[in-house]
Amino acid sequence: VTAADAPGAFPTSAAIVGVGLIGGSLAMRLREVGVHVTGIDRDPAVLDQAKARGVIDEGTTDLDAVADADVVIVATPLAQVVQTGVAAAQRMRPGAVLTDVGSVKASVVAAIDAGLPAGVRYVGGHPMAGNEKQGIGAADAALLDDRPFVLTPTERTDPGAVDLLRAMVVRLRMRPVILDPAQHDELVAQASHLPYLVSLALERSVGEDARTVAGPALVQMTRIARSPLALWDQICRANREAILRALMRFETELAAVRRDVEQMTPR
Amino acid sequence: VTAADAPGAFPTSAAIVGVGLIGGSLAMRLREVGVHVTGIDRDPAVLDQAKARGVIDEGTTDLDAVADADVVIVATPLAQVVQTGVAAAQRMRPGAVLTDVGSVKASVVAAIDAGLPAGVRYVGGHPMAGNEKQGIGAADAALLDDRPFVLTPTERTDPGAVDLLRAMVVRLRMRPVILDPAQHDELVAQASHLPYLVSLALERSVGEDARTVAGPALVQMTRIARSPLALWDQICRANREAILRALMRFETELAAVRRDVEQMTPR
Repeated sequence: VTAADAPGAFPTSAAIVGVGLIGGSLAMRLREVGVHVTGIDRDPAVLDQAKARGVIDEGTTDLDAVADADVVIVATPLAQVVQTGVAAAQRMRPGAVLTDVGSVKASVVAAIDAGLPAGVRYVGGHPMAGNEKQGIGAADAALLDDRPFVLTPTERTDPGAVDLLRAMVVRLRMRPVILDPAQHDELVAQASHLPYLVSLALERSVGEDARTVAGPALVQMTRIARSPLALWDQICRANREAILRALMRFETELAAVRRDVEQMTPR
Repeated sequence: VTAADAPGAFPTSAAIVGVGLIGGSLAMRLREVGVHVTGIDRDPAVLDQAKARGVIDEGTTDLDAVADADVVIVATPLAQVVQTGVAAAQRMRPGAVLTDVGSVKASVVAAIDAGLPAGVRYVGGHPMAGNEKQGIGAADAALLDDRPFVLTPTERTDPGAVDLLRAMVVRLRMRPVILDPAQHDELVAQASHLPYLVSLALERSVGEDARTVAGPALVQMTRIARSPLALWDQICRANREAILRALMRFETELAAVRRDVEQMTPR
C-alpha cells in the first residue's frame, strides 16, 4: 500500500521530539508537504529558533504533546532515543505510529519494542542524511533530497505502520529502504560509520604544513571528521562489532593498495 | 613584485599544451582575464571541441606554435610532461616563461631544468584543482577558484619568472604557494595522493549491498576513487617514497582509531 493507493494513510500531523539538525530538517520538509508539525525539545531556545525559522508550527517542552500526533519521530541524540521513545509511546494515542532516527537499530528496536504499550505501533527508522554540523541552525530540508530512509520492521511490526511511514518517506522526497535491524547495522557500519572513522584518521594524519596544498579531495574527505565526537562515540559503542568488521575489510583493501604502490617501479 | 607593482609583467599570450580537464580550465580562466590563448593538442577533435566551447582562441597540433606565447603551460598527463616541456622549450622565444601542471615536481623539475635551452625560463607548477573526471568536456574555470597553485622554483630559477607566474596565478583567482620541489612532493603525498589511495581502499571495502544505504559522507569520500587509474599509476610511480611515508602516517592513526573502538564498552 502506498500513499497513492491509500491517500488516507498519509499522516496529517507529526510530532518531532528533538529539534536539531535531522529533526529540524524533517520538520521543514513535513511542513512543506502540508503536515502539521509540533516540535518538542527540552530547550525552549531551540523551539523559539525553530518557530522563528518556520521549521515547526508550534513548539513545547512537554512530551505530553505527542498525544495529538498521527506520527511521532524521535530525533534526539542516539543515547537518549530508547528512553525518549518509550516515554513518548506511553503518551501516544492508540493507532498512532512511532519511529526514530537513531543511527543504530538492533539494540534500539529491541529496547523500544520491549517498552511499547498496546495500541502504539513502532517502526525503527534511519534517514541517511545530514552533514558535519549539528543543531537547529543547520537544519535544511534539502539535506533529505533523494537520500535513503531506512525502515527496520521486525516480525512484531504492524505492516500498516510500515506502509504509512513508507508513504511519508516518499513524500519527504527520500528513498525508502526496508531492512532487518541487524542487517541495517551491518550495512551502515560499512556505508556510514567506517567512512567517518577513515575520515578521522585521514584528518589526523595530514600535517598542518600539508594543508596549504590541500586539493578538493582532501577537503571533501575530511569534512565529516569535523562532526561532533560525542555523537560518534555513542554510535561506536552501540555498533562496535559491526564497525570492527567494517574496519577489517577496509584494512585489508588498504594493505592491498600499499602492496601495489610498494611493487611499483619508477618510470 | 606582483602584477600590481609591475603591470607590464602580466602575460598577454599563453600557449596551453594538452587541452584536457586542467589545461582547458586554465585556458578558460586565462581568456576570461584577457589573455590570448593558443591550445596545442595532438588530437584535432579536442581542439575542435575546445574552440566550439570557447575555451581557446585558436588551436593547433603543431608544437611550434609555442613560439608566439609569453607563457607556455604544459598540461599533458604526467608521464609526458618532461618530454613535452623540453620539446616546447626548444621552440620558445627567449625570455618566455615555461611552466607545467604535473602532480609530482622533484623529478620533473630536475629533468626539464637539465633540458632547458639558454634564455627560456622555467618554473615548476601544480594547480591543486580538478575532480574525478578528465578531458576537455569536463573543463570548468570554476574548478580553479581559491585553490592553491604551487610554484616550485629552485636556486637555478629566474626570480622574474616566479614573479610573473605568481601574478598570473592571482589573476586566475588561485592562491600562489611557493615550495621547494621535494617539499612539494612530500606535502602533496599527504594532501592529495594519500586521500586518493584511501578513497580507493574505501570504495573497494564497501559491499554492493551497503551502497543502498550510503549517506553523503561515503558519496563524498569515494568520488575521487573514480578518477582514472592510469593517471594515479603515473603519480604513484613518480612519488612512491613520499606516498609510502604518508600511508604509514595514516595507518598509524587508523590503528589508534581502531584501538579506541575496541576499548569501548556498550552503553
